[in-house]
Amino acid sequence: MIVVMNNDATAADIEAIQKRLAEYGLRGHPLQGEERSIIGIVGAAIPPTLREELEFFTGVRQTVRITRPYKLTSREFCAKDTVVMVRGIPVGGNGCVVIAGPCAVENEEQIMSTARAVKAAGATMLRGGAFKPRSSPYTFRGLGEPALQMMAQARDETGLSIVTEVMTPTDVDLVAKYADVLQIGARNIQNYQLLEEVGRTKKPVLLKRGLSTTIEEWLLSAEYILSQDNPNVILCERGIRTFETATRNTLDLNAVALVKRRSHLPVIVDPSHATGKWYLVPSLSLASIAVGADGLIIEVHPDPDRATSDGGQSLTFENFAALMSRLGAIATALDRTLLTSES
Amino acid sequence: MIVVMNNDATAADIEAIQKRLAEYGLRGHPLQGEERSIIGIVGAAIPPTLREELEFFTGVRQTVRITRPYKLTSREFCAKDTVVMVRGIPVGGNGCVVIAGPCAVENEEQIMSTARAVKAAGATMLRGGAFKPRSSPYTFRGLGEPALQMMAQARDETGLSIVTEVMTPTDVDLVAKYADVLQIGARNIQNYQLLEEVGRTKKPVLLKRGLSTTIEEWLLSAEYILSQDNPNVILCERGIRTFETATRNTLDLNAVALVKRRSHLPVIVDPSHATGKWYLVPSLSLASIAVGADGLIIEVHPDPDRATSDGGQSLTFENFAALMSRLGAIATALDRTLLTSES
Amino acid sequence: MIVVMNNDATAADIEAIQKRLAEYGLRGHPLQGEERSIIGIVGAAIPPTLREELEFFTGVRQTVRITRPYKLTSREFCAKDTVVMVRGIPVGGNGCVVIAGPCAVENEEQIMSTARAVKAAGATMLRGGAFKPRSSPYTFRGLGEPALQMMAQARDETGLSIVTEVMTPTDVDLVAKYADVLQIGARNIQNYQLLEEVGRTKKPVLLKRGLSTTIEEWLLSAEYILSQDNPNVILCERGIRTFETATRNTLDLNAVALVKRRSHLPVIVDPSHATGKWYLVPSLSLASIAVGADGLIIEVHPDPDRATSDGGQSLTFENFAALMSRLGAIATALDRTLLTSES
Amino acid sequence: MIVVMNNDATAADIEAIQKRLAEYGLRGHPLQGEERSIIGIVGAAIPPTLREELEFFTGVRQTVRITRPYKLTSREFCAKDTVVMVRGIPVGGNGCVVIAGPCAVENEEQIMSTARAVKAAGATMLRGGAFKPRSSPYTFRGLGEPALQMMAQARDETGLSIVTEVMTPTDVDLVAKYADVLQIGARNIQNYQLLEEVGRTKKPVLLKRGLSTTIEEWLLSAEYILSQDNPNVILCERGIRTFETATRNTLDLNAVALVKRRSHLPVIVDPSHATGKWYLVPSLSLASIAVGADGLIIEVHPDPDRATSDGGQSLTFENFAALMSRLGAIATALDRTLLTSES
Repeated sequence: MIVVMNNDATAADIEAIQKRLAEYGLRGHPLQGEERSIIGIVGAAIPPTLREELEFFTGVRQTVRITRPYKLTSREFCAKDTVVMVRGIPVGGNGCVVIAGPCAVENEEQIMSTARAVKAAGATMLRGGAFKPRSSPYTFRGLGEPALQMMAQARDETGLSIVTEVMTPTDVDLVAKYADVLQIGARNIQNYQLLEEVGRTKKPVLLKRGLSTTIEEWLLSAEYILSQDNPNVILCERGIRTFETATRNTLDLNAVALVKRRSHLPVIVDPSHATGKWYLVPSLSLASIAVGADGLIIEVHPDPDRATSDGGQSLTFENFAALMSRLGAIATALDRTLLTSES
Repeated sequence: MIVVMNNDATAADIEAIQKRLAEYGLRGHPLQGEERSIIGIVGAAIPPTLREELEFFTGVRQTVRITRPYKLTSREFCAKDTVVMVRGIPVGGNGCVVIAGPCAVENEEQIMSTARAVKAAGATMLRGGAFKPRSSPYTFRGLGEPALQMMAQARDETGLSIVTEVMTPTDVDLVAKYADVLQIGARNIQNYQLLEEVGRTKKPVLLKRGLSTTIEEWLLSAEYILSQDNPNVILCERGIRTFETATRNTLDLNAVALVKRRSHLPVIVDPSHATGKWYLVPSLSLASIAVGADGLIIEVHPDPDRATSDGGQSLTFENFAALMSRLGAIATALDRTLLTSES
Repeated sequence: MIVVMNNDATAADIEAIQKRLAEYGLRGHPLQGEERSIIGIVGAAIPPTLREELEFFTGVRQTVRITRPYKLTSREFCAKDTVVMVRGIPVGGNGCVVIAGPCAVENEEQIMSTARAVKAAGATMLRGGAFKPRSSPYTFRGLGEPALQMMAQARDETGLSIVTEVMTPTDVDLVAKYADVLQIGARNIQNYQLLEEVGRTKKPVLLKRGLSTTIEEWLLSAEYILSQDNPNVILCERGIRTFETATRNTLDLNAVALVKRRSHLPVIVDPSHATGKWYLVPSLSLASIAVGADGLIIEVHPDPDRATSDGGQSLTFENFAALMSRLGAIATALDRTLLTSES
Repeated sequence: MIVVMNNDATAADIEAIQKRLAEYGLRGHPLQGEERSIIGIVGAAIPPTLREELEFFTGVRQTVRITRPYKLTSREFCAKDTVVMVRGIPVGGNGCVVIAGPCAVENEEQIMSTARAVKAAGATMLRGGAFKPRSSPYTFRGLGEPALQMMAQARDETGLSIVTEVMTPTDVDLVAKYADVLQIGARNIQNYQLLEEVGRTKKPVLLKRGLSTTIEEWLLSAEYILSQDNPNVILCERGIRTFETATRNTLDLNAVALVKRRSHLPVIVDPSHATGKWYLVPSLSLASIAVGADGLIIEVHPDPDRATSDGGQSLTFENFAALMSRLGAIATALDRTLLTSES
């Protein structure tokens, strides 16, 4: 950490800081410049609140953190890419996975037909919401456990792994009984009890970035899960909230490329929520693979105009199948492999 | 709702929409313009998902919602200002309340001395965190129930009502046992299980706007609480996340003025989190009262430079007392009353 | 346009609106719903300020525009993709162009060596700043006309077309004397005099989106140029300003895909400014082509760590050449062609 | 400046940086920590591009600037508040000024009646647009010089000083012939030629913050004017662009309070553009004075529902007069004076 002093800071101001540092067993290295002074504090055992403390001292202009606050999640902690295994399917590494399915599970017919269609097109995992977070208390919030049972039935028949959201700590055991991957939605990115609870299951977790979560906060939320000795975290970029309202959100592919450098965790992209428009999903899916994402999670629905949730961003079976073949071509051009149900 | 058709939409496209509307017992009123057609749907019983459904139809350019999605929270539902009573103190109406105290309860000495000081300066409620949401798993997360007990002790001695955050549904009963007002933090603005759980207690709830929550979403989150037959919601603006990083957040006083028109609920402001800098807190407190807020929640700490959390944004006792007398003057100039512990 | 009335709007309120419409020779079509009324106005000759006018009327809740405000720029005006010809090179259509070069022209040696290197790697156009907009008055602002002369010399030797920024209306003639493409920078996206002036030259214009320009505003700025009978506009997405500061800007590839639908104009991407980090440029370049962009403009410098401007986002010659071969592979996988200096 | 090295940076990496510093006559002070090293560079003569240069070096993690890039504008350069004199009226200091008038000058009758009304209510300056920046090429762009003549006539009759926008460098002399204060609009905040041109006139300049301009960039734009030996800059906060669309912009009063600390220049607020809704203007005007602004610029129109521009955010004469008396009360409560035409 570095403490930058004001132009008019006095020797006594610097002395006061040194005294406080000494209380923590730290030593500051002052550096006197022509205009102003700085104090470098480079010990490893800096208390997390020290920075705030020192900002309050007389004569201090600002403090600057020089280490990143996440550890287990960082590339420095683990240079090698983490591969999360989901019932035999590797997420991360050279392959690209595609997770597909409806926003919400609506009935058996809907989820079974979708499972068969996305499997036939090459998807390896099935998504589907049993518990749905909704802005309004008056909209459909999911079928709950019966939806989980239908997902499990779809897995039995098709062999697809299943990915579904858990919204509250007390539901974790129930959802974990059925799901292969526990999804944490964007609204819960800083629901720390929930993060720790899914951490404890040791199951793979799909951690969606929140609408206004910085990259650093996103990785800190992953750290909550990893710190429960659960290394099986798959990050998911799904668009951030910006001033632009012509699309539902702004897909941040810069973040995908940067997170692949800063962390060893696999990163996938959700182009359906990121755009909110089904006709933009194929282009952004291709771009996501091109930027280096390890996979995609895409909304597919047998009859999008009758979907109970997010129909306008869902692909039909035909559009999804067409997209899959284009994804294969682009993965090949990048010397990567699109993992498919047959591969 | 209004459906706007593309220039090249055909009669068959419009027919298809009419047919779907008929399935819901609705009737569309088409209006043929020179450039394009629109279809007005003005029935009251429009299903919440209809808009998404219709956006998927051939020939549709966009759909436009013309009613607000919240009901109980809206000014149209209740023209008169709601006044939430907290142990005899009215929040809302002509008076302005001040809630003050440390970010986190650290020990008995700290919370008792703060309670006495803010009471002496005129505050009517005490804030203090027992459970603290923290971005990093490695920082102080609050003392838990012992902190609640210290808060209760401070109430016993000073008569101040106590306001404290609850972070997860399973803690609601515990926190409600001690607190007079249950605070929902910015990170939990869309933690719907938690919103419903605090709703069920019927206790006053302080609902902080999230970092990137629109005004509409904020009121919808309030609706989750009101729909549990708990009308005792106090809204709290605490700054939003924007591109500007020179302050911790951007205080949105436009939102305070607008919400006072759109909703009947009381609105207070948290200038401490909104600015992140103690030296900006007094100015923004004055501005908040001037814009029409019903009160303030301010961080005060006996020794801000040793605070375990958010010290840099806390006022000292002296600064807080000085601010209180300026707040009184401005309230008077606006024909409002600053409610104080003596009044 | 649609006027949505308040629940409590009276017949007189609606009458007043009808009267105002009649003054403009328009007719409103009222539609009475159960909860509220709307008035549809579908004539083509609606004055641009009518919407603001009506919002002020008693009983009006909101007005909704149902046509887009740009005309010449819209896909509805011209269904076929525009191809802008730059000295024989088509921008738009099936090919992808790459423009490369330094942020600022520094000296003859620098620009000549860069021109040769990017040409050898396959670029078809050379970028280089003669006039540089800089946030601070104390930083390097470009060499001016001598830089333009060096660019022209580079064109003479290599055959590359040249792209350079013009910052103020009085410089347009000077810059147009040398440049093949006039670049309008992000800061000047709403400098309307400048837009009209470059429009009048009829030369190709590269129009960069501003930091906080919506897609609609961007297309309206293009409209300023097109309305001068200059159809040769190349749009350029270069990142928007959001809350995320880990990258210089947030590249908005959603916008590229959406603009390709809403407008017939070609769209290219500037991954250098969009990321601000040279090591992210290759990934985002690949993603940009994958999403459907018609080309790229990339910063390349012989010695990035000695660049007078934006060195940290410039590629070396080697990195640029490596990127070009990957771009070719991805274009092929998408059935497009990377236009190169040899092709 | 501080250079933070990667964990695995070598002695040779540090050596390379030292060598580069030596080329500039600078010396780095390395500080070896347990985890990583930093290099402090505290000389005054650091070239502006050094930071970018060093970021490109092997082993460098980041560079941190520790001085602010503006000089003349900073509070450190001038501890005393600047008071800009406009025909005898002090802007800055203990008084608060109110500038009022229509968005655009439409005709003599409109501007003269408005001038009389705002004067009667106590305003000391008249605003009115002769040249209007408009997003669309198809909307009203102002009357030009005849509007300036009408403004001058209004000044002759009422004694009000006049404030009007100049949009392009070649218009500066013309506008300066009539105006007492040259306004730079939000879209031109980084139109550097224009900033220098108005700087050269030595006339008072009202510099509006751009939609997505950081506080630092705003002060750097002021620096462009001050560096032309024109100290007469009045800053104007007018709302920034954020994710919230319920109001036209988000008024950033945090910025007003912070700029008053960081700079010696006077700061006023434009609540009309900041909210976009006339009924929010009074509340935000009061808040602006309460936060410490030195004045307001408010849109007033004789017949807002027939305004050619921004009618929905204009006050009527009655509403403006009512606001003025409330502003006086709040200024008094803060021990400031509302400067009025009679005072």
